[in-house]
This record gives sequence, C-alpha cells and structure tokens, in this order.
Amino acid sequence: MDNTTYYGAHLAETDFKKLREKMIGAAKEGIKQAYASEEYALMQAINAYLELDRSYNLAYERLSEWYGLYFPEIKLHSAKMLANLALVLNSKASIDKNAILSLVHESAQVESLYAKASSSMGREMNDDEKEAIIKYAQLLLSMDKALSSLNAYIKVASTRLMPNTTFLTDEKIAAELLSKAGSLERLAIMPSSTVQLLGAEKALFKHIKFGSKPPKYGVLFKLSEVGTAKREMRGRIARAYASKICIALKADVYTKNFIAEGLKSDLARSMERLKRASANRPTKEKDDRKRQNADKRRTFSKP
Amino acid sequence: MDNTTYYGAHLAETDFKKLREKMIGAAKEGIKQAYASEEYALMQAINAYLELDRSYNLAYERLSEWYGLYFPEIKLHSAKMLANLALVLNSKASIDKNAILSLVHESAQVESLYAKASSSMGREMNDDEKEAIIKYAQLLLSMDKALSSLNAYIKVASTRLMPNTTFLTDEKIAAELLSKAGSLERLAIMPSSTVQLLGAEKALFKHIKFGSKPPKYGVLFKLSEVGTAKREMRGRIARAYASKICIALKADVYTKNFIAEGLKSDLARSMERLKRASANRPTKEKDDRKRQNADKRRTFSKP
Repeated sequence: MDNTTYYGAHLAETDFKKLREKMIGAAKEGIKQAYASEEYALMQAINAYLELDRSYNLAYERLSEWYGLYFPEIKLHSAKMLANLALVLNSKASIDKNAILSLVHESAQVESLYAKASSSMGREMNDDEKEAIIKYAQLLLSMDKALSSLNAYIKVASTRLMPNTTFLTDEKIAAELLSKAGSLERLAIMPSSTVQLLGAEKALFKHIKFGSKPPKYGVLFKLSEVGTAKREMRGRIARAYASKICIALKADVYTKNFIAEGLKSDLARSMERLKRASANRPTKEKDDRKRQNADKRRTFSKP
Repeated sequence: MDNTTYYGAHLAETDFKKLREKMIGAAKEGIKQAYASEEYALMQAINAYLELDRSYNLAYERLSEWYGLYFPEIKLHSAKMLANLALVLNSKASIDKNAILSLVHESAQVESLYAKASSSMGREMNDDEKEAIIKYAQLLLSMDKALSSLNAYIKVASTRLMPNTTFLTDEKIAAELLSKAGSLERLAIMPSSTVQLLGAEKALFKHIKFGSKPPKYGVLFKLSEVGTAKREMRGRIARAYASKICIALKADVYTKNFIAEGLKSDLARSMERLKRASANRPTKEKDDRKRQNADKRRTFSKP
C-alpha cells in the first residue's frame, strides 16, 4: 500500500473540481457519440409503428362494432373508409348523398349505401353519441396519418442506414430486425441462423426447453415470399433469405457498397432451385421424413 | 300428420310474399326495439375508452423513450406536457423560450428546461426524424382529446341511464359494470356478490378450479375508497359498496327514483363502522384468522 501514490490527495480543491468536470464532460461526450447514429431513432420509430398499428386495428374493430349499432347493414373492410363514413353518415333523417359520393366515388355503391342506411334497423343516435363517435372516428383518421408519417420516416431512415438490406426485404422488416438485434453493429455480426430466427425467441426457447417444434422464421415471416409460400417450403425460403440478408448487412455496415441487386438475383435463382426441388421430391419421401421428425421430437421431449 | 293444416300451402304466391315481408318487418322492428336503449352505445363508449387509454399510455411511454434520445435530461410526468414540449422543443440550436413558457407557465422551470436542453448530451435530430416525432406527438394530443370526449359522453350517458349508481360510484365504474354484465336489465337483477366480483372472473375461476385465494373485488377496485384502503379492509369495503350499488341499480332500472344520496350516507356510516371494528380487533386474532384461512386453502387445493 505504501508504494502507490494517491494523485487525488495532492490536488488542490479547484484542480479536483476541474478534473471532475472534465471527466463528466468526457463521459457525456462518450454517451453523445454512442447515440449519435440514427439507428436508435429508427428503432424507436419502428416500435412506435408496430404498437400504433395494433392500437389502430383495435380502434377500427371498436368503431365498426359501435357504428354497427346504428347501421348494422353497412359493412366496410377499410378502416379509413369506415371512419370517413362515420363522419358524414350518422343520422337516418339527413343522409347526404353527395358526401357519401365524395368518399366512395361510385354511384352504384352510393345507392346501395343510401338504401341500406335509410331502411336501417339500427338505433338513431342522439347528439351526445354523435359527438363521441365523430371524435372517435376522427381519432382513427389521425392514427392513420401518424402511421403513414412513421412509415415514411422508416422508409427514409432504413434506406439511409441499411440500403442493401432494405432493398432485399423492405423498410419495415429491415427496421424490425435492427430493433430486435439492438444495434446495427450487433445485427451485422450475427450468424445467418440467428437472423433467420430473430423475433421467434419465445418459440426457440420453448423448443430448447420442452422439445416443441423448432421455429423456422421470426420477423422474416413478414416477407411475402415466406408468408405466401407452401408450409413445407417456408423454412427453406427463410434460410435462403437470412443468408443473403447477412451479406447485405455486412455491406451496409462495413464496406458501404450497394450490392443488393446481385444478391436479389442470386436469391431469385435459389428460389427457383428450391421450387424445382420441392416439385421433384416424391410425396412418399416427404411423409417418411415427417414421421421421422415426429419420432425425433417424441424422443427428445422425454425427460 | 293428416289432421294438421298447412296454411302456407293455401296461400297465393303474392299473399305469401306479403306475409314474408311482414314477418321480416316484424323481426327488424324487434331488433330495433332491442337495441333502442342507449346502454349499448354506452357499453361501446366505455370499452373504447378503456382500450384507448391503454394505447395512450403505450404511446406516451414510447414518446418519452424516443424523445429521450434527444433530450435525455428532461423528464416530465405528464403525457400531454411531454407531447406539447416535443412540438416546440426539438432542436438544440433553436430553443424558443417563449413557447416553453406558454407550456409550463413558470419561469424557474423554463430556465431549468432551457439549461438542460441547451447542454443536453442527446443527439441532434435531422429533419425526417423531427417530422416523424412531431406527428407522433400530435397523435398523442389527438388521443388525449378523444379520451376526454369519450369521457364526457360516458358521464352524460351514465348519469342519464344509471343516475343512482353513477352518483354512488362514478361514471366510468358504473359504465364498466354495465359492460361486464351485458345489459342494464341483467346488471339490475344480479346478486350483490356477483356485482362485487364483476371483472374478477379470471381470479374467481382460478379460485374455483385450483383453490387459490378468492378474489374480493373486480371493477370495484377502481373505487378510490377500495383502492386506497388497507389491504385487509378492501374486501369488506367492496362488499358494502356492492350491496348499495345493487339497491341503486334497482332504483335506476325499475322505480327510477333518485335515492342515491340516502345510500351514500348509509355507506359512509358503514365505512365508519368498518374502520372502528378494524381498529378494535386485536392483531393476534387477525393472525389466527389468516392462518385458519391458509389451512382451509391448503385442504381445498388437495385433489
């Protein structure tokens, strides 16, 4: 203990204060540097988008149920249209055909709406109800606007930060992968199999712990190629995508070259190959394979 | 079979059509009658309110996290204030003191905000981010407005439909009880113990199935008298409230008299009595009772 020197003990108080301020300044600068990248804003935006989208759907369901009290005959499958209709058509006594026409742009549909509304068996709303439902419909429209503004920002930021990945997938999938990984750097060094399963953590741990079926895709299910493919093809397509996404991410973070076009044509070729292989494989073999897998699972899940 | 007469068979086709239309008309009229009461609109409104409230809190959390990237030093505990601040304070380079002053109305707080913002270690937002976050903050304000409009409607409708119950509890609790019951008529004929546990269905069935602790209150927990009471008192207070609410409901639905003031003073007296009883009971006895209950539960949960 005697041969160490306490520098602090020899400093005058003012020096010490200065030093302290300098250190705090350095720490602040460090934090500033760490959060200087736009990726953090992008992660916030995509999470805001996903949450808001859920709230929006909930509000749409509520509005259609509520509006259904007054006009149970009218069914619309677009939230925006329903909200707009609720703003102009909310009394059986005074139906404004022109206002409806300006919404649906089709006179046949206007006539059908008019006929349904005027002979509706729903209840007549009083003024308090009308005000409340109009405000609620307006909120739905604000949510819609906020969603598209978030979407626009996500598109810009994803394209700026991850041009290759965004080109290969789309802005929302790229941003969601980023948000699951926590930072661009971490996402870029992930192995392809991890990228494939990002967003499927729950199913993965269920598989590890209880031997349930392993997940084949997480966020990547949102790719239309994966989501619309045949069930037995989805895992393979997701794997092919994940491997190319990993290459794209490395280009985005390190070399900053735009190589996504080449990757996309490679992917298209892999898709072709996968499809051909799946068409050629005899059904019998597929069934056998399924049974084998089921057996494996059964063995695995035994204690 | 021979001695029954098929009236339909003897009708001409036009008569049949007329009859059919009449029947459909009668059915429509029946549906109209069934939904004529405002209670259905009130149920939609309270559910919309509760859902929107959850979305609002989620959006507030997201905004404070997002805004925290730019000004991590600023902490505000009001969603509305935060959203308004995000609208006017979103660049370190141009801080508008007057705009902040018009928000917080207190020069000391403005100075503190100014000092924090100008020396903030957060990142500077670019124009795209600014636009997105401003739209998001505006949405938060729209949600706030929609919430208060729903609240206003719920207040009006609850007071109109259930004056006694609303006076005894408050408009939102009355409306939520109604929505859990499904109709005013059904709510009015429920026994007091059912009203006490409305909204605690999950805990109740868990108790019945697995012998966990029985719930003591559902929606009624939102009463400030129940929520802020001592833990061992809450069940008793909820029971007292439920019994008076049942009387109030019967007055609301059947007699339409306003008797809530008398009920409220009765309740106040019961509360007094409960408090006195709880203060007098020796602690030892309470502990014994607890142990007995625990024993009962243990016996009950055995197969």
